[in-house]
Amino acid sequence: MTHKIAILGASGYTGAELVRLIATHPEMEIVALSADRKAGQSMASVFPHLRHLDLPTLVKIDEIDFADVDLCFCALPHATSQAVIRELPKHLKIVDLSADFRLRDPEAYAKWYGGPHAALEQQAEAVYGLTEFYREEIRSARLVAGTGCNAATGQYALRPLIAAGVIDLDEIILDLKAGVSGAGRSLKENLLHAELSEGYHAYAAGGTHRHLGEFDQEFSAIAGRPVKIQFTPHLMPANRGILATVYVKGEAARIHEVLAQAYAQEPFIEVLPFGEHPSTRHVRGSNFCHIGVVADRIEGRAIVFAALDNLTKGSSGQALQNANLMLGIEETTGLMLAPVFP
Amino acid sequence: MTHKIAILGASGYTGAELVRLIATHPEMEIVALSADRKAGQSMASVFPHLRHLDLPTLVKIDEIDFADVDLCFCALPHATSQAVIRELPKHLKIVDLSADFRLRDPEAYAKWYGGPHAALEQQAEAVYGLTEFYREEIRSARLVAGTGCNAATGQYALRPLIAAGVIDLDEIILDLKAGVSGAGRSLKENLLHAELSEGYHAYAAGGTHRHLGEFDQEFSAIAGRPVKIQFTPHLMPANRGILATVYVKGEAARIHEVLAQAYAQEPFIEVLPFGEHPSTRHVRGSNFCHIGVVADRIEGRAIVFAALDNLTKGSSGQALQNANLMLGIEETTGLMLAPVFP
Amino acid sequence: MTHKIAILGASGYTGAELVRLIATHPEMEIVALSADRKAGQSMASVFPHLRHLDLPTLVKIDEIDFADVDLCFCALPHATSQAVIRELPKHLKIVDLSADFRLRDPEAYAKWYGGPHAALEQQAEAVYGLTEFYREEIRSARLVAGTGCNAATGQYALRPLIAAGVIDLDEIILDLKAGVSGAGRSLKENLLHAELSEGYHAYAAGGTHRHLGEFDQEFSAIAGRPVKIQFTPHLMPANRGILATVYVKGEAARIHEVLAQAYAQEPFIEVLPFGEHPSTRHVRGSNFCHIGVVADRIEGRAIVFAALDNLTKGSSGQALQNANLMLGIEETTGLMLAPVFP
Amino acid sequence: MTHKIAILGASGYTGAELVRLIATHPEMEIVALSADRKAGQSMASVFPHLRHLDLPTLVKIDEIDFADVDLCFCALPHATSQAVIRELPKHLKIVDLSADFRLRDPEAYAKWYGGPHAALEQQAEAVYGLTEFYREEIRSARLVAGTGCNAATGQYALRPLIAAGVIDLDEIILDLKAGVSGAGRSLKENLLHAELSEGYHAYAAGGTHRHLGEFDQEFSAIAGRPVKIQFTPHLMPANRGILATVYVKGEAARIHEVLAQAYAQEPFIEVLPFGEHPSTRHVRGSNFCHIGVVADRIEGRAIVFAALDNLTKGSSGQALQNANLMLGIEETTGLMLAPVFP
Repeated sequence: MTHKIAILGASGYTGAELVRLIATHPEMEIVALSADRKAGQSMASVFPHLRHLDLPTLVKIDEIDFADVDLCFCALPHATSQAVIRELPKHLKIVDLSADFRLRDPEAYAKWYGGPHAALEQQAEAVYGLTEFYREEIRSARLVAGTGCNAATGQYALRPLIAAGVIDLDEIILDLKAGVSGAGRSLKENLLHAELSEGYHAYAAGGTHRHLGEFDQEFSAIAGRPVKIQFTPHLMPANRGILATVYVKGEAARIHEVLAQAYAQEPFIEVLPFGEHPSTRHVRGSNFCHIGVVADRIEGRAIVFAALDNLTKGSSGQALQNANLMLGIEETTGLMLAPVFP
Repeated sequence: MTHKIAILGASGYTGAELVRLIATHPEMEIVALSADRKAGQSMASVFPHLRHLDLPTLVKIDEIDFADVDLCFCALPHATSQAVIRELPKHLKIVDLSADFRLRDPEAYAKWYGGPHAALEQQAEAVYGLTEFYREEIRSARLVAGTGCNAATGQYALRPLIAAGVIDLDEIILDLKAGVSGAGRSLKENLLHAELSEGYHAYAAGGTHRHLGEFDQEFSAIAGRPVKIQFTPHLMPANRGILATVYVKGEAARIHEVLAQAYAQEPFIEVLPFGEHPSTRHVRGSNFCHIGVVADRIEGRAIVFAALDNLTKGSSGQALQNANLMLGIEETTGLMLAPVFP
Repeated sequence: MTHKIAILGASGYTGAELVRLIATHPEMEIVALSADRKAGQSMASVFPHLRHLDLPTLVKIDEIDFADVDLCFCALPHATSQAVIRELPKHLKIVDLSADFRLRDPEAYAKWYGGPHAALEQQAEAVYGLTEFYREEIRSARLVAGTGCNAATGQYALRPLIAAGVIDLDEIILDLKAGVSGAGRSLKENLLHAELSEGYHAYAAGGTHRHLGEFDQEFSAIAGRPVKIQFTPHLMPANRGILATVYVKGEAARIHEVLAQAYAQEPFIEVLPFGEHPSTRHVRGSNFCHIGVVADRIEGRAIVFAALDNLTKGSSGQALQNANLMLGIEETTGLMLAPVFP
Repeated sequence: MTHKIAILGASGYTGAELVRLIATHPEMEIVALSADRKAGQSMASVFPHLRHLDLPTLVKIDEIDFADVDLCFCALPHATSQAVIRELPKHLKIVDLSADFRLRDPEAYAKWYGGPHAALEQQAEAVYGLTEFYREEIRSARLVAGTGCNAATGQYALRPLIAAGVIDLDEIILDLKAGVSGAGRSLKENLLHAELSEGYHAYAAGGTHRHLGEFDQEFSAIAGRPVKIQFTPHLMPANRGILATVYVKGEAARIHEVLAQAYAQEPFIEVLPFGEHPSTRHVRGSNFCHIGVVADRIEGRAIVFAALDNLTKGSSGQALQNANLMLGIEETTGLMLAPVFP
């Protein structure tokens, strides 16, 4: 059976990544693609790498007849997403890739995103899209909120450790290295090749990055008490890939054991042998997440590493994994593409 | 039906790329992987991006029982390949990715590769592996010789034009830009990141590159008279991707028409609208080749561009396409992966 | 003696490069910096790499008192430049880095830049700034027009050959590879890191690039008859560096001899031994241009290579070299910085 | 007065960087260059970017007549350096860029470098080369030991804070991002462009990097009690640049104040305004170090950032700064080159 799919916001990188993945998905068919400012253009003209595919022309959202659509991916900018999703037909299954439905608490949303939420009803209904930890809720959800790509990476490293109580909750430092495609296709001086290549720097340093809203919400919920981590992302001269380096206090071998056990049955999470650590280039273009644990020379301290591709496992691959669940398709369908290296 | 596959030389980039592609191929199973110096190691330790796959341990070639193998890919270094292939069982179908069997004329081989061929019998038997032009021979071949990656790119741009007689055969200039993975995983100072990133230069300038042997052989055969092109490759600060810029004399619109017609039914060759030209980043990680034609301001001159991924369409993807044909599998199986951009 | 310098358009890359070079120039002092949209900001906030310098705050052009200024560099956008320069005081020496005064013929200007020139008087007065070939005129000029960076590279390879009559004037093909900083700091989707890194493509293919106006003007003047070359630039995934690959018909050894002789006394032009060819990474950050000549395997054909840094020798370094001449300073002052490799 | 300089190990990146810097140094002349395996070659053939300079041919060390040499830079591999320096004439001033003389305690040396030191007498004599903190000792030293490039970066961030007692000495975490040229020009698979570009990973994770020997030695000496930090370096897809992200416990504003005060008179250390943080690309090719301090959202925690160019301030620039002091030359001579951006 083929499910009919619409993608809103198809002219951005996460939209294109969805199309790339669905291109070889045997049970999905793309029936509508929207891109407001590029409506009327072919996808091939906006993303020439998709030229070989037979795709619908880009249209405005209100030109789409959703009656025929089974599931809709929203790859729209933050804030736009909630206004659009509020108005979508109620029969429609939705996977949102924006930040709009990640935070369950309207106050937390207002704090991190600077204003009130415009779709409180949908916000209440949305399921947080970190597949491995919300699998059953996602299966029956109508609206799933894709996680932040940094937030996903940090959570893969930390959730089982917080749940198992094997690390000090007040001493978690997440130093993250992120590729530039996570910032999207927007025209900003600091995203120019000449500004970025051959160098690196922190951004949103000191605890101001919005993905902290997700960390706070999720980690506190697991721990049953407030958990605040330190989180400093750095922008890397590369297009894809997030590497999380997490400094924790706890017994390294035990930490490794907990992670290995937690992910033993997961098709996309690979825990490396104790003492090994991952590289972003070994997950590029794939839905895999590699996790490693190393003991520090200082006793009682460990470093947990997690690497994934921000556009795939961190965003569009996660979205497809969730869509599979929501449509009753085998979870890994279309997602077993091996990483592209070199 | 699942065909049993061996890959010799699995510790190089083309070997790894074969594994990546076969990983999602529904009708092939890898039963043996060789790597002489890394025998005994797991593929995951040599190529961590393949960690999620259940693969045989690397062994030496003579440890492989070929009785069970249907088809063998040889991704060995030039010269080694001929010595190995000479000794392989005769029932075995073979796709060779080295340069050893590309030239049909032993003298041409000796000229370009600096010595006599060690497997003349197999050389005589080998079919040149440019799928779109040798499809029927490949279908029934026992031994197929994968083309040079630069040679493939140049031929996609030029073969139909030479066949149709629409360009001046004595005035063909091929300026080629190649990513560094084409040089393999060998330890050479000029392949270090610090030597290569953020700069570009020509190599084998002036007509000394070995792929000229292939151009001479193929173009002369098509034209029915000697054709010698100018060919200067340049090394780019990027891992994957070949861009051929071909300067020809002929009528641009007619040239475009000939190419569009020649490739109209080809699943992997995309001819762009007249006046557009391709980028390597739009074919990365895929088996597609994008071709464009632009008229020069000087009448009677045109520029033909061809872009492909040297490791995929230029090497391992081509090899798999040929293997599909040799095994009676639908030609595009496992090869419709969309390019990875950005 | 210290000369007082103003730089208009200091918030672009060529402006910053001028400041970088003048920072260690013993006979120049920067007394004014303009940047319309960033007026009021410090140079350190716009270009943090210049933080250690004691520089004037950015102002609007009309806030500058030119009475005290000896020489003014104009690093303004094309078209803006002519409007500004028309109004500058007549005592002021000016080096313009825009395209506005490169073409002597108003009709040629209109053809390549799409409209009439707004400062015809100054256009008539301007001296073309290719130092090695206009040295005496520049010495006594009031207004010098910096060349295009691609135009400079191609001319270094070709001018002596055209002058000496050793190549076929109707068969010149210039395939050029250019780093991205040549496109400036403007917000364009195709200049984003995610769009550019790890790939390459042609632009302005087929003879539409504006620098052809300069090639036509200069080469025809040297030859005493119309000369039209083929010119196709390619955008490289690197910030700095132009490599010109020029395909010519002529005797390679003689071509090398002519170039070696032409540049024997030039402090910044290095002609490599016959058969060697340059790399952009070996001139990065410097005012040097490396030139090489290789014979093709086809008799009577040669390939001439030229490499320079587009921001230095191709633009701001050239401008400073000219300013030195105009102010009676030793020509190489402040410009002998060795290239930065790796 | 011109001082006569020899450089041993001139075929590596730090050797070439010394030549680059000395090229515009008004009081130094290079009279000898050694490179054992490349003896007999010109420097231009080994490093074409230095082609414009008039340099001595590369020789073996024992071919150098040191009688005429005032100061010798040793840019030899670790371990080789001590064997060579032991035998050099006693009149000779020496700046060593290897790791051989950084650790004062022979036992610490044996622990971190895996064996006994072969030049204990010289080890005892050597002064640690972190100029800003050992300036007076360096002025009168005969042998100065250049610091590790990572070690320098971390110390610039931390020394004043440890001295002032404003941070918790048991809770220092240094997450470091390093460009690839720091690993030298050696032929290792993991330094190939294809292995490194577009990705990132940690190395020597968990406290095994040798530069920890320097951190332990220096920080403990300042504090007057053992100080052990956590230190995890990461390899970046870039040639130059180290970014240190240091997580500390202490009052951020006070930390900034201490650093600003400590470096107020330093010509090469720039402390950014409170809340700002540096980028490696803004120090590239220069001898500057940029330092920033940001308060974390968790009270009592701060992040200190330091950025420098590993080949310049982290190695050859530092060496030249020290040589200036040893020869009685103004300390900043030849080192005020502005960073190269973009």
